[in-house]
Amino acid sequence: MSFRMVAKASRSRNRERLSPIFSAVRRSFSDVCSQSTPPSFGIVFDIDGVVLRGDIPIGGSPQALRRLYHTSGSLRVPYIFLTNGGGFRESTRARELSELLGVNVTPSQVVQGHSPFKQLVDRYKNELVVAVGKGEPAAVMSEYGFKNVLSIDDYASCFENIDPLAPYKKWTTKVTSKDRTTEEVRVPLRNNVQSQRVQAAFIISDSVDWSRDIQVLCDILRTGGLPGRDIGHQPQLYFAHDDLAYQAAFPSERLGLGAFRIALEAVFNRVHQHPLEYTCYGKPNPFVFKNAEILLEQLVSSLHHANAASHHFKTLYMIGDNPLVDIKGAKKAGHPWFSILTRTGVFKEKGNHPNFPADLVVDTVEEAVDYILKKECNS
Amino acid sequence: MSFRMVAKASRSRNRERLSPIFSAVRRSFSDVCSQSTPPSFGIVFDIDGVVLRGDIPIGGSPQALRRLYHTSGSLRVPYIFLTNGGGFRESTRARELSELLGVNVTPSQVVQGHSPFKQLVDRYKNELVVAVGKGEPAAVMSEYGFKNVLSIDDYASCFENIDPLAPYKKWTTKVTSKDRTTEEVRVPLRNNVQSQRVQAAFIISDSVDWSRDIQVLCDILRTGGLPGRDIGHQPQLYFAHDDLAYQAAFPSERLGLGAFRIALEAVFNRVHQHPLEYTCYGKPNPFVFKNAEILLEQLVSSLHHANAASHHFKTLYMIGDNPLVDIKGAKKAGHPWFSILTRTGVFKEKGNHPNFPADLVVDTVEEAVDYILKKECNS
Repeated sequence: MSFRMVAKASRSRNRERLSPIFSAVRRSFSDVCSQSTPPSFGIVFDIDGVVLRGDIPIGGSPQALRRLYHTSGSLRVPYIFLTNGGGFRESTRARELSELLGVNVTPSQVVQGHSPFKQLVDRYKNELVVAVGKGEPAAVMSEYGFKNVLSIDDYASCFENIDPLAPYKKWTTKVTSKDRTTEEVRVPLRNNVQSQRVQAAFIISDSVDWSRDIQVLCDILRTGGLPGRDIGHQPQLYFAHDDLAYQAAFPSERLGLGAFRIALEAVFNRVHQHPLEYTCYGKPNPFVFKNAEILLEQLVSSLHHANAASHHFKTLYMIGDNPLVDIKGAKKAGHPWFSILTRTGVFKEKGNHPNFPADLVVDTVEEAVDYILKKECNS
Repeated sequence: MSFRMVAKASRSRNRERLSPIFSAVRRSFSDVCSQSTPPSFGIVFDIDGVVLRGDIPIGGSPQALRRLYHTSGSLRVPYIFLTNGGGFRESTRARELSELLGVNVTPSQVVQGHSPFKQLVDRYKNELVVAVGKGEPAAVMSEYGFKNVLSIDDYASCFENIDPLAPYKKWTTKVTSKDRTTEEVRVPLRNNVQSQRVQAAFIISDSVDWSRDIQVLCDILRTGGLPGRDIGHQPQLYFAHDDLAYQAAFPSERLGLGAFRIALEAVFNRVHQHPLEYTCYGKPNPFVFKNAEILLEQLVSSLHHANAASHHFKTLYMIGDNPLVDIKGAKKAGHPWFSILTRTGVFKEKGNHPNFPADLVVDTVEEAVDYILKKECNS
């Protein structure tokens, strides 16, 4: 199997074909990783454009991931998925990834854009918050511990005529009970909701109905959380990430949550006296990478029954397809991060990215894993 | 019946109650207007926030309009509706207004934001154009004479996966067969559409599905009209109007087509190398008022079997609720326009608008018509 690589000179290795040596590498690697010594490296995978495109595995991802497990099925190399995407509970996404990729992915290995929102539970407690995005936004927030959360669908339905375009949206399927999660989100009485001030809005994933969501968010954010009332102090606004575009099934990139944020901000700033204030989570924020390192330490400690605090990684590999998100973030995070850029997603060029050059550029995630295992075995 | 008025000093009249004098006014007015001399004045009504809110007549509009007709039902005072709204054919809207307001409104009395698009038919002939907006955008353009027009619903359905949010939309803006007009819009084969370059996009009314429409418009406008292909020269882009907000049934104003334009422009300018280029029609463009004057002249000539070219209005009254649109436009158009601002829509203040002061401010359209008839009768 031949492959193209672009690597920084200080890290280049010999470029012999892997195949003849591969079985030898695998034997010595399994010797290394079956020892009681926790591995000194870990891997972080982006999802869209790296291991999947839509629901389709790409770049040899199933076989690449299988190499990270013992033949018994237990995890051999600590790895997690770090995606800006989301909309479903981590347990749901882990189950879906396991089915699509043919390996056992646990919820603790799935870090989504909105995962850090659980750290805000204590701030809001029983205050009314609204969750926006495709999937099951209210269920996600409920599972994190928010006690009084409504999806923007349910919240908007409490205000008659709030969306003047609603008559033009012809429902094709009734939302049935099976569409809802098993933990039903209780919908408060209409009067009760209208008199409760919304304290914060959480955009957990892509808004589906931009016209309705931008209208209702403007209503909430302009009035201190009470649509239809007087102008008030802006409630908090959080975005799970700020990706402008991402690679889906269509040949060219599709607009992401970052585009929704740009649209909302542009409209809000035209209708309101004060500019929109908000906080964006997700890659390339360095704290996301710091958090990923902590999670990998915890994974290692659970695998090796070791003390997480005393273990430190020499190298953490970030494999991503978006230079502005994955590579930029790894570079900003610094040691011990090593960035690998694939060509199966947003990035498609022959060379490296000019503004955010990765430590290594490969065609596929399978080549990335090959490189890592070979490097870690020989070191 | 008492009413509050704020008028410029040079045009103030005595402020006696109208009721005692009203019957006398009406008798003398009907004498004037039953003569063969064409009237020297005409009236232009905005719709939303002046005569209707949603589908509900407001401000005494039915009785106000009845005064503009002879008892026989024929038109006595030339008037038209000049609205930035739209989405349906002028004949359809005229029928609807007749039903809601209880007077006979003809299609020639309805001027919508997209009505001037018919002047662009010769430019595009058989070239593929896409029409966007609530209602029946393709049928509107077809009736104007465009030979190869698709709604953005039908156009987007020819490109698989162009909208990655489609699986999450439990609603559609697609018109079903029973909603379609009797003149079916032929949907070209998918292959045929994918290979035809879109020459122009017409935004005729409020976009319903902002996420899909902004995505597909970016695809069209970035690639010279061939989504999924290489970057190309931007096709033409037309907006029927640019109203940022308007008064609908909800207590506070709702975002309008101007907000959609702002959102599209902000997103496009972030993903594309060149800023978005477009043309906005609708009030307050002065040419819209010039066009309205011409239409009123034609109305007069048809009512009085006179030569439209030889008739000139001394005064044209613009009755609107939006200072930035109706009053600003009338002021920019200049003579013979006289602007009247009502308080039943966007504008709700006690005094006049500070930046675009109207010649007269009244509470309702009924008071506006009272004022006009009294003034024209006494002059």
